[in-house]
Amino acid sequence: MSDYDSGNVFAKMLRGEITPDIIYQDEYVFAFHDAYPKAKVHVLIIPKGAYKNITQFGERASDAELIAMLRAVPKVAEMVGIKEGGYRTLINCDKDGGQEVPHLHLHLLGGEFVKLDLG
Amino acid sequence: MSDYDSGNVFAKMLRGEITPDIIYQDEYVFAFHDAYPKAKVHVLIIPKGAYKNITQFGERASDAELIAMLRAVPKVAEMVGIKEGGYRTLINCDKDGGQEVPHLHLHLLGGEFVKLDLG
Repeated sequence: MSDYDSGNVFAKMLRGEITPDIIYQDEYVFAFHDAYPKAKVHVLIIPKGAYKNITQFGERASDAELIAMLRAVPKVAEMVGIKEGGYRTLINCDKDGGQEVPHLHLHLLGGEFVKLDLG
Repeated sequence: MSDYDSGNVFAKMLRGEITPDIIYQDEYVFAFHDAYPKAKVHVLIIPKGAYKNITQFGERASDAELIAMLRAVPKVAEMVGIKEGGYRTLINCDKDGGQEVPHLHLHLLGGEFVKLDLG
């Protein structure tokens, strides 16, 4: 897509140029531990497709990609042991959302009561 | 569903017993302004189906319900004028996620830089 910057760190992971601590992947999504955890458990779930943010994903992604993203949330939560205790999911979009890496990523935070002041 | 408490405030809205400030609805989702906004714009998007949290939604909802939830995010963001500036989406799940109302709700926050310390 013309407005996607393929030089971002998650694009590099998806191309295998950087190797994250992978938890789960399927045809459409990829989940790994955040390199700078803001909670006891801090995982990122990203689409394999090139979507810069949740706006673009919700508008352009296929139905199968949307389904995979939401089905992955409880699946990954269970894999990292936070499904029972609970967790927060956070997606930051663009400037007012404080988005840093321009590839959609869903933060999955848990393992303890997750304070919202994530710093 | 046996583990869904139909006495919660969002269930009452969906039954028409309480009337929120409705922004958008379709067959599967319902969006309205949060009664206690934590940002300049603070909208809640909820499924019409009886799902107590995102875990249950991701595991049990139909594909059509999952699709509708994610398609609604940019649509509602545009309707409330925060699509261009950006926003955060937050879902709190169960105890460690600080979930208050036991019906899945996605917080859509924007209209200004959204601080994460939402109080």
